[in-house]
Amino acid sequence: MITRIREDIQAALRQDPAARNWLEVILTYPGVHAVWGYRIAHFLWKIKLKLFARIYSNWIRAVTGIEIHPAAKIGRRFFIDHGMGVVIGATAVVGDDVMIYHDVTLGARGIGSGKRHPTIGNNVVIGAGARVLGDIKVGEGAKISANMVVTKEVPAKTMVDSSEFFAI
Amino acid sequence: MITRIREDIQAALRQDPAARNWLEVILTYPGVHAVWGYRIAHFLWKIKLKLFARIYSNWIRAVTGIEIHPAAKIGRRFFIDHGMGVVIGATAVVGDDVMIYHDVTLGARGIGSGKRHPTIGNNVVIGAGARVLGDIKVGEGAKISANMVVTKEVPAKTMVDSSEFFAI
Amino acid sequence: MITRIREDIQAALRQDPAARNWLEVILTYPGVHAVWGYRIAHFLWKIKLKLFARIYSNWIRAVTGIEIHPAAKIGRRFFIDHGMGVVIGATAVVGDDVMIYHDVTLGARGIGSGKRHPTIGNNVVIGAGARVLGDIKVGEGAKISANMVVTKEVPAKTMVDSSEFFAI
Repeated sequence: MITRIREDIQAALRQDPAARNWLEVILTYPGVHAVWGYRIAHFLWKIKLKLFARIYSNWIRAVTGIEIHPAAKIGRRFFIDHGMGVVIGATAVVGDDVMIYHDVTLGARGIGSGKRHPTIGNNVVIGAGARVLGDIKVGEGAKISANMVVTKEVPAKTMVDSSEFFAI
Repeated sequence: MITRIREDIQAALRQDPAARNWLEVILTYPGVHAVWGYRIAHFLWKIKLKLFARIYSNWIRAVTGIEIHPAAKIGRRFFIDHGMGVVIGATAVVGDDVMIYHDVTLGARGIGSGKRHPTIGNNVVIGAGARVLGDIKVGEGAKISANMVVTKEVPAKTMVDSSEFFAI
Repeated sequence: MITRIREDIQAALRQDPAARNWLEVILTYPGVHAVWGYRIAHFLWKIKLKLFARIYSNWIRAVTGIEIHPAAKIGRRFFIDHGMGVVIGATAVVGDDVMIYHDVTLGARGIGSGKRHPTIGNNVVIGAGARVLGDIKVGEGAKISANMVVTKEVPAKTMVDSSEFFAI
């Protein structure tokens, strides 16, 4: 547990150039607080304290602006920068060393049952405001730019971007 | 009043596959809390306690991340899923059985007066991050995809989408 | 200081047609509260109470949903409307009389050091959900539409928009 907490702090220090030291990360990183909160909520969920897990998650959301369903499966060294508006659904799966920015959605398309949220590979980076929707795979090392809407498989080591969609 | 509260809970249970029971919705759905908060604020606004309505709305926003102007007119069984970042302007009108996701804006275009926010028909669904701007009508049963920017009338039962705007 | 506070309130009254009076702005405008909070945090940062500045900023973020790094440089009469989800990075520079809506990001592209956030000219307006990324200049009086992603220089008095990127 201590190892995981140390890893989470190190991920923040490595990936945010504005992070100055451990104490600053521990005290002032809502993305780090949300991941710790998720790890506790996920544990509560697994031992069948589901309602309590949801209440706790919702409290973490109110404080951090980050909503991670306690049933989601999230890997090691997950770093959420800024984080306000992030939503991660109940059947989402996130690999190791993933980094996402604020306002990213790992969501569903319409109403279904079963696995309906994405599976994100290791080392993926997802930019602010991107929506990754449906039970799709985002391959290892892929990058998704800000505000993209992704509803199809993303192969490993590709960039989802659009240089055309604005004009001056 | 009790009927309305029951309806709001039923709407959440019907439209979110992750919702497990009444108690969970009552305790952990910020979208439901925000709609109840709006109904109280709207009542305060109508009896001319406008400043108090605004203060109360702002407090609901701080807790839920959802900002609904107390002067907006909102129909029955309105369901906001997740909800962080939703903004609904003072002259917006929302029909019955509408569902919106987090970070949806029903906003204005620039600075004007009079009716400057959209009118949303019954049974409309609006995806995360979509911005519906100006005094336009979104027809009954229309669907607006995530991150769309809509500034023109949307006919009934149409889908506002773009399959081109991202490329891998 | 009193002058600055008066200016901030006047900016809100001028730019939001829903704002009814001074008292309403003082009590219920999270965008105004966030700018005041930033001005205090920036002062703490300048006198080298950096950790305390960050803790205070983070508290302002939890209450208002608006995250402004205390090291950012922000001009006079800056008005943030609605504000939930706004992120302004450590090396961002914002001119005078700038107006931004909720969920705007003045962010970086990937991980770098030095100046990595944008410089926004006087009288710029940035719509909800727009992401302005990297050390670029947005010229005086430019307007950026909702949900745009801007990663290149924007000349003065131009409009960044896209009328094509949605289809019905």
